[in-house]
Amino acid sequence: MKVSIIGSTGRVGKSTALCLAEEETVSVLQLISREESFERSKGELLDISDALAAKGVSVELETSSNIKDVEDSKIIIITAGIPRKPNMERDDLAHVNGRIVAKYASEIGKFAPDSMILVVTNPVDVMTYVALKYSGFHPSKVFGLGNHLDSLRLKNYMAKHFNVHVSEVHTRVIGQHGPYMVPLISSTSIGGIPLEYYSKRDYFSDYKPFDLEGTIRKVINAGSNIISRKGATEYGPAFAVSNIVKTVLNDEKRILTVSTLIDGEVADIRDVCLGVPVKLGKDGIEGIVPFLMDDNEREAFIEAAEFVKGSTMEVMRLLEEEGLKRR
Amino acid sequence: MKVSIIGSTGRVGKSTALCLAEEETVSVLQLISREESFERSKGELLDISDALAAKGVSVELETSSNIKDVEDSKIIIITAGIPRKPNMERDDLAHVNGRIVAKYASEIGKFAPDSMILVVTNPVDVMTYVALKYSGFHPSKVFGLGNHLDSLRLKNYMAKHFNVHVSEVHTRVIGQHGPYMVPLISSTSIGGIPLEYYSKRDYFSDYKPFDLEGTIRKVINAGSNIISRKGATEYGPAFAVSNIVKTVLNDEKRILTVSTLIDGEVADIRDVCLGVPVKLGKDGIEGIVPFLMDDNEREAFIEAAEFVKGSTMEVMRLLEEEGLKRR
Amino acid sequence: MKVSIIGSTGRVGKSTALCLAEEETVSVLQLISREESFERSKGELLDISDALAAKGVSVELETSSNIKDVEDSKIIIITAGIPRKPNMERDDLAHVNGRIVAKYASEIGKFAPDSMILVVTNPVDVMTYVALKYSGFHPSKVFGLGNHLDSLRLKNYMAKHFNVHVSEVHTRVIGQHGPYMVPLISSTSIGGIPLEYYSKRDYFSDYKPFDLEGTIRKVINAGSNIISRKGATEYGPAFAVSNIVKTVLNDEKRILTVSTLIDGEVADIRDVCLGVPVKLGKDGIEGIVPFLMDDNEREAFIEAAEFVKGSTMEVMRLLEEEGLKRR
Amino acid sequence: MKVSIIGSTGRVGKSTALCLAEEETVSVLQLISREESFERSKGELLDISDALAAKGVSVELETSSNIKDVEDSKIIIITAGIPRKPNMERDDLAHVNGRIVAKYASEIGKFAPDSMILVVTNPVDVMTYVALKYSGFHPSKVFGLGNHLDSLRLKNYMAKHFNVHVSEVHTRVIGQHGPYMVPLISSTSIGGIPLEYYSKRDYFSDYKPFDLEGTIRKVINAGSNIISRKGATEYGPAFAVSNIVKTVLNDEKRILTVSTLIDGEVADIRDVCLGVPVKLGKDGIEGIVPFLMDDNEREAFIEAAEFVKGSTMEVMRLLEEEGLKRR
Repeated sequence: MKVSIIGSTGRVGKSTALCLAEEETVSVLQLISREESFERSKGELLDISDALAAKGVSVELETSSNIKDVEDSKIIIITAGIPRKPNMERDDLAHVNGRIVAKYASEIGKFAPDSMILVVTNPVDVMTYVALKYSGFHPSKVFGLGNHLDSLRLKNYMAKHFNVHVSEVHTRVIGQHGPYMVPLISSTSIGGIPLEYYSKRDYFSDYKPFDLEGTIRKVINAGSNIISRKGATEYGPAFAVSNIVKTVLNDEKRILTVSTLIDGEVADIRDVCLGVPVKLGKDGIEGIVPFLMDDNEREAFIEAAEFVKGSTMEVMRLLEEEGLKRR
Repeated sequence: MKVSIIGSTGRVGKSTALCLAEEETVSVLQLISREESFERSKGELLDISDALAAKGVSVELETSSNIKDVEDSKIIIITAGIPRKPNMERDDLAHVNGRIVAKYASEIGKFAPDSMILVVTNPVDVMTYVALKYSGFHPSKVFGLGNHLDSLRLKNYMAKHFNVHVSEVHTRVIGQHGPYMVPLISSTSIGGIPLEYYSKRDYFSDYKPFDLEGTIRKVINAGSNIISRKGATEYGPAFAVSNIVKTVLNDEKRILTVSTLIDGEVADIRDVCLGVPVKLGKDGIEGIVPFLMDDNEREAFIEAAEFVKGSTMEVMRLLEEEGLKRR
Repeated sequence: MKVSIIGSTGRVGKSTALCLAEEETVSVLQLISREESFERSKGELLDISDALAAKGVSVELETSSNIKDVEDSKIIIITAGIPRKPNMERDDLAHVNGRIVAKYASEIGKFAPDSMILVVTNPVDVMTYVALKYSGFHPSKVFGLGNHLDSLRLKNYMAKHFNVHVSEVHTRVIGQHGPYMVPLISSTSIGGIPLEYYSKRDYFSDYKPFDLEGTIRKVINAGSNIISRKGATEYGPAFAVSNIVKTVLNDEKRILTVSTLIDGEVADIRDVCLGVPVKLGKDGIEGIVPFLMDDNEREAFIEAAEFVKGSTMEVMRLLEEEGLKRR
Repeated sequence: MKVSIIGSTGRVGKSTALCLAEEETVSVLQLISREESFERSKGELLDISDALAAKGVSVELETSSNIKDVEDSKIIIITAGIPRKPNMERDDLAHVNGRIVAKYASEIGKFAPDSMILVVTNPVDVMTYVALKYSGFHPSKVFGLGNHLDSLRLKNYMAKHFNVHVSEVHTRVIGQHGPYMVPLISSTSIGGIPLEYYSKRDYFSDYKPFDLEGTIRKVINAGSNIISRKGATEYGPAFAVSNIVKTVLNDEKRILTVSTLIDGEVADIRDVCLGVPVKLGKDGIEGIVPFLMDDNEREAFIEAAEFVKGSTMEVMRLLEEEGLKRR
């Protein structure tokens, strides 16, 4: 089970490497960096090796600045690109990161034609589309971190509020990983019971009124909130990526909200990558799950689709003008 | 974290002991047996010790035939009683097992007044009521295995059929642990989407029509099916018990379907123990969850309640006639 | 990673199945039973499935009474045979169990020629030799449970006495799995320090004098002790087997004391299977480790070898007289 | 089980926090930072919370810049201080870090008088002495990371070379955590067999000659090697700290090589903190283990002791001149 991380010296890249290694999710981990970061990447490798020795686990770690060394990977995680700074929106990075992702995706298509690509670079929905087109891969093989971490955050905040185990909360955030994200409140349930029942009376002795609006705002701002404080997100995305990698490598058939190509399955939207619930297994995406939306949610989802599509088409146009050839 | 098992030489008792020990759910495990089974119980203790040595985990194991040694237990698991044989219904055991459970519950009330009781002996709903009344404990402190294993089985069969991870299936079986069990199909969902949507079309490439009736029958007969083949159930109940014990000891706030005293919370039913979803934490049952039923399910639940109540009252009457004093 | 268990309805067989499944050591587990035990084996499978559902893990379980279904197994565990009863020595079973093991080994050689065989049936050293000769496999591919559990027991008793973590104790039992076992006291260490230093003074505040003789006797009698009390050993052997299976499947390169063919590596002993420390990895036995013995230990080891060799040759002769053909 | 980390925004501090939280080693984790780093520390807390949500584990995280909030901690980990830069020796930091550690240790003595202190700040042997004297704690309650990570590294390099599981290698590094460290080669063993036997012949098919000198050099330079490449060590120390914390909180009685006060137990050395093997349990250090040294090792250990003692006395003198009062 070989997995490669492109961008292994960035904060998300190196944390992801640590997480995949220490949980023994993979047996071989290849860290790919730019040539000028090779020594740093080697430093990360040595530091992670020490952590593994301390934990008593064994994973084969390699590092290279030659993209050819992704070959034989089952999954290739792209974290390379300019990270978001305080007071920046994810979309401000679209063009410059698009160039980076397109180049790597094209090379992956060449050197690891049977792999899958997991895109983490922001704006992730746009970058997933770029990776899809420049790798030439089937849409089931290219997916982005999307709203997976957003969904985990919403789940977690609700579990804490209602004082139940996090596995009892079923909820999702879909659409864009950014301000256009759409929390699916209408089909949210706790212990299998629709959320609205919990608002009606105090079933549990520890009942407190739930601030839905405030909680949604907290999810939308969670990333910025961390970035404004510590300069970057680091551990959260890493562990969310690890979830997805495990689901695929172990063929777990979990239904996760990742960014994937929408092609008419939802609200007649086509040719754009967005976060929706999909079944993930050893072959990647095995289908979009028939999720439900009320009218407001549907409207918000369409709005998200339009925004992301506009942004995506603009980046694709610029990349083509620059002569970047798709596979 | 001391836990005691009463009936440690029975198949469920000894498997439960193995499971709680090897998963390090507890730090001290007290095996209580009748005096004539003490040497056997010591044999189980030595055999489990070998398993722990092989696994490299460390739990303090003790065995005694003096019920006084349950003292300081956080949870006391009652598995003692006559086990069900092939072609026997669980209710055939009610009177004789009622006598055993009443006696132990009364002694627990005396020697471990701050503990909780988890009843596994069948018929479990009736026995939970007996344990409640003879211990004199608050209803939040006495609960039975109930429909927890039935619910796990239904979940598992559905996950296999729809080829999704078991955590994606939300469903429950409530009512009686026996032929009157009630599967809550109306609020069953997969990946947060109501079951009915999955019957409508083939969302996944691996779609096959779902045999609801057949699946429910399989759940109802699962126990008998194992008993007719290997003479007893053994590992399934043990691991289901372990779930409940973990949830309580680790204060996990999971919503599990255990047998508990119903007192007007559901369909105006009172003074009987039945399987319903409850929130479980370090103090035992923290509340019955507001679960939904359609008309058929409600009717079936009421029928289950009537049957179990009749059976319970009969056993309570016999025990009182025999002069067994409640605390 | 398919593993098969032959003798899946015996106590050690079914416990081993539970253990390998619930720890997710394997991905496919095939339970092989005699035809007359097939329904029982199916019962074990269903019971284990319930345990897996409760634990939330997923392993493919199969059962068959057709030995052909061991095909594609990586490891085949032979637990079939008559179990030891109270007041019986393991060697009393040699002839009748030899017949069973020879037959299965021969069939394994035919249907799963690329597998490895792990022998658990007693007398295990003799049976390992029988399996080796009747499978026709390379000696690195056939090994017995040997003194692995004996070694774990000794380690564990010493860790408890000296009140240190079990991983700090280095000791082994070699030779025969039976009364001729040889504890390697001369190279026993705690925390890397030879045992003798610990006897000299009270390094730790909790120091108590160590009863070496009594501890060795306890190891020799551990199995009989359990059998006299509960009628059979069950969980200890199962978890010890699981250790060995994990080491091989995960290519862990642990040095375990299993029964293997000795051919001049130790004390000029040849053509007999005995417990010695070997390095185990994905290809089975990768070499006997250069262990040290003092004069007494060497003498005891030679005695064990002579006894086991006598017993082995006698069984081999009887099997050949009965016309059982080796591959 | 509350644990506090002082210096939670430094690389080792925040990685340690992640590690202790995601492995659920603790139930409450208090992150203490300077006032000017409080917002950053809050950012780390939020980022770690996201990781926990992704992993599905639950730990109570708190952050504060008021040292008073260490109260009720079982262990307090001091990572605060100036980190080592490329081309710096650990001892260059002694005076400035001594001031920081002395201040915190004194406050810990006041606000958490029943806690234990684990010192990570470098030069760790000197800082452990400072923490001991300024906290006023009993020597069994104050220990430094010492040579624990060095020992893990040596173990790991040898396991890789000899291609055996890391748990089969028994070796240690003692003395100073720095250029005066002393590898205990004379009592190094693999699978319980002294290292020298492995050099004599090719026991395993994959035998390669072992470069002892080169391996020791690699251990001595491991930290600098990482610092010169990625600017700091981060994950290795975090996971090594986690080992120690687990051993204490779970009362595991492991024998780890941490920095502790030597007072005549070894080579007549007194009144200095050095790395030696100690038994660790719930009460901290339960005794120094009777380790063996050959003449060269003893000489090197004495040299290390002299160097560290000189350095320690100098720092203590400066701190006293500055008027820092010991408790």
